[in-house]
Amino acid sequence: MQTKLEIDPDRLLSNLRCLATFGAHLTGVHRPTFSPQDMAARAWLMDRMREARLEPELDGIGNILGRAPHARRRLLVGSHSDSQNHAGWLDGALGVVFALEIALAIAKLGDPDVAVEPVDWADEEAHFASFLGSRSAIGELSEAEIDQSRCATTGTPLRQALASAGLEGRPRFRIDPSCYLGYLEAHIEQGDYLDAHDLSLGVVSSIVGIVQYRLSFRGQRNHAGTTRMAIRKDAGAAAVALLHRIHERFRAIAAERTVWTVGSIRLEPGQVSIIPDLAEVMLQVRDADDAVLARLDSALRDMVAEAGAASRCEIGLQVESRTNPQSMDARLQKALELSAEQASPGRVMRMPSGAGHDAQILAQVMPAGMLFVPSIGGISHHWDENTRDEDIVLGCQALAGACARLLWGDMR
Amino acid sequence: MQTKLEIDPDRLLSNLRCLATFGAHLTGVHRPTFSPQDMAARAWLMDRMREARLEPELDGIGNILGRAPHARRRLLVGSHSDSQNHAGWLDGALGVVFALEIALAIAKLGDPDVAVEPVDWADEEAHFASFLGSRSAIGELSEAEIDQSRCATTGTPLRQALASAGLEGRPRFRIDPSCYLGYLEAHIEQGDYLDAHDLSLGVVSSIVGIVQYRLSFRGQRNHAGTTRMAIRKDAGAAAVALLHRIHERFRAIAAERTVWTVGSIRLEPGQVSIIPDLAEVMLQVRDADDAVLARLDSALRDMVAEAGAASRCEIGLQVESRTNPQSMDARLQKALELSAEQASPGRVMRMPSGAGHDAQILAQVMPAGMLFVPSIGGISHHWDENTRDEDIVLGCQALAGACARLLWGDMR
Repeated sequence: MQTKLEIDPDRLLSNLRCLATFGAHLTGVHRPTFSPQDMAARAWLMDRMREARLEPELDGIGNILGRAPHARRRLLVGSHSDSQNHAGWLDGALGVVFALEIALAIAKLGDPDVAVEPVDWADEEAHFASFLGSRSAIGELSEAEIDQSRCATTGTPLRQALASAGLEGRPRFRIDPSCYLGYLEAHIEQGDYLDAHDLSLGVVSSIVGIVQYRLSFRGQRNHAGTTRMAIRKDAGAAAVALLHRIHERFRAIAAERTVWTVGSIRLEPGQVSIIPDLAEVMLQVRDADDAVLARLDSALRDMVAEAGAASRCEIGLQVESRTNPQSMDARLQKALELSAEQASPGRVMRMPSGAGHDAQILAQVMPAGMLFVPSIGGISHHWDENTRDEDIVLGCQALAGACARLLWGDMR
Repeated sequence: MQTKLEIDPDRLLSNLRCLATFGAHLTGVHRPTFSPQDMAARAWLMDRMREARLEPELDGIGNILGRAPHARRRLLVGSHSDSQNHAGWLDGALGVVFALEIALAIAKLGDPDVAVEPVDWADEEAHFASFLGSRSAIGELSEAEIDQSRCATTGTPLRQALASAGLEGRPRFRIDPSCYLGYLEAHIEQGDYLDAHDLSLGVVSSIVGIVQYRLSFRGQRNHAGTTRMAIRKDAGAAAVALLHRIHERFRAIAAERTVWTVGSIRLEPGQVSIIPDLAEVMLQVRDADDAVLARLDSALRDMVAEAGAASRCEIGLQVESRTNPQSMDARLQKALELSAEQASPGRVMRMPSGAGHDAQILAQVMPAGMLFVPSIGGISHHWDENTRDEDIVLGCQALAGACARLLWGDMR
């Protein structure tokens, strides 16, 4: 029966392009959470939801949910419409407009028993805090965290941003998992795998876990001209030596899809003629397999201990944050795969997501699944981010097909 | 005849301690160039020069010279009384007060034919520019450079700092080398060599050359979760790999006294979830031997070329600045060594200076020599910097002895 859920490719692309006019920046968008352009985009999205005969609700943290209160079988489908600073036009907007398009297709169909409720989660991009909206919706965001959060770019307190956006005093909604068959999210891949392998759709098997480490090296500040090499306690040199070992060892023991990144190295005092007494390094490791993360963690701890014993500097290791890998629901993966194969035969693959997504939050309370469309050249979080129109249309058709299979129970 | 030049240890220590009250900070001083406390210290020093029957002149760049216009045999002796930010009480102040003490001893002696002219050079520490005062005095500081220089800490233009210090419009003096037998400078060692080897005096054989390199690594900014390791252009990882090689190779080919320092590593954009597209590294190399500096330079260029050919990042190498090693005058070294041995038999050694000093500037126009006293624990540019009173007194006695040998011609 899924064949009867037909999307309108022109409307889909036209709505996507219209959404991209809010906060347009070069060939992308600058639509940070709670900015005027973000709130205008949300208002526009609520109008589109009304066109799909839904009852949109904007809650106290900026989430929008297009409710179909009378449906008996519901899917929650969405992503986020806000963006990183000066970023691409698709990213989360794609998944929100896909959900909207499918809701419009259902509205045209006129079956009051089934519904796709489009959802637009606030601040997946962590301007204020990671997965702000989706965590709120599953009851994992406290008032205390809201009190403490500030914008990473401007320092504006979250409370003040909510007030400026007109959200102060609004209730925050909580998703009732028993009302939904599951949660589906479409997103650009952000990596280059699909693009490089000439594939058109990726069914996400799991979302990687992310471990964020802080390495600190404490030595002794001294004169770079008069202090002999033999007695130096050079925190920067200690950091370079250990980072080199980490890169070498991780290359040997990582899994095929593991990624690790040293995004930041800071030396104190950072002056050319002074031996640094402090080096701080941020090291991030991602993998979809807990066992791989544990193996790398254990190797890292061994290397830190060995280096610390051999070095004249004190070396410290702290886990700054950790999210666990999150598997996507097997039945939803199957539904996505079947309809993806139908939309683009032989050009579909299952793959982990290297980036975090709201689906990993929803997966904690209900079955969740994700579909990727290709990112040209793997570019994301940059205004050069793009996806071919035909791949966008294929993605929405595949997502609509999966919704139909789940809503009407046809899982052939 | 040098025995008749007797310094007064109590006056010496008392004047040193009094100078340390200007800008006192914890157990050290904060007396940056042209600060009110620096100018007050200079006024105090000029009064002390008058006590030695000299005619002090404060010039348009902040140098003070205590002139003895009627002497027939003159030595220029001094250092700098200003300090690094929040630094030690001795550093250059020691050499200025030594010069003052010797001038006071000569005044007591009452020989009008000979003079030590104490000199206090401005901004050896490069708040505005390296060796500002001494370069001015040998004609190597242009008005254009003064126009362009700013305080490294506050950004204040040098012109404005000079005006605030009341120096605007004053002429800058130029040293006439033909008027002097040479230039002598005493300084704390700043390293730990004398202290660690229980020596009391170091006769400087040469001042190291310093080559300051900037290494740049250009890669591609990308998402730290979705970009496979195999296609990354990670500028930070490229920097770590090359710096590791440089440390290893330099350890193998450096000379005994060579030092090299990576004082700064900067990754762009420096965020935990973004692969850095730029790494900038400051690498400094010091040695007293030109051939050693050339050997390391050549090895560095080879390593950069090899790494650049093998890496997915572009690697650049620039020489930011270079000073050549500067030998001290053989006759002045001999005079210093003879009197140092007399002051502290068997506890004197010849050694290179790992730090730069005004003596390397003066050496370009006249014979120059330097004497080191021990730094306890090798600490300098920190308020913990210190030297034992008896080593301070020995140092001044040795310097006075060398002055006597040179002024009265007794070089036994």
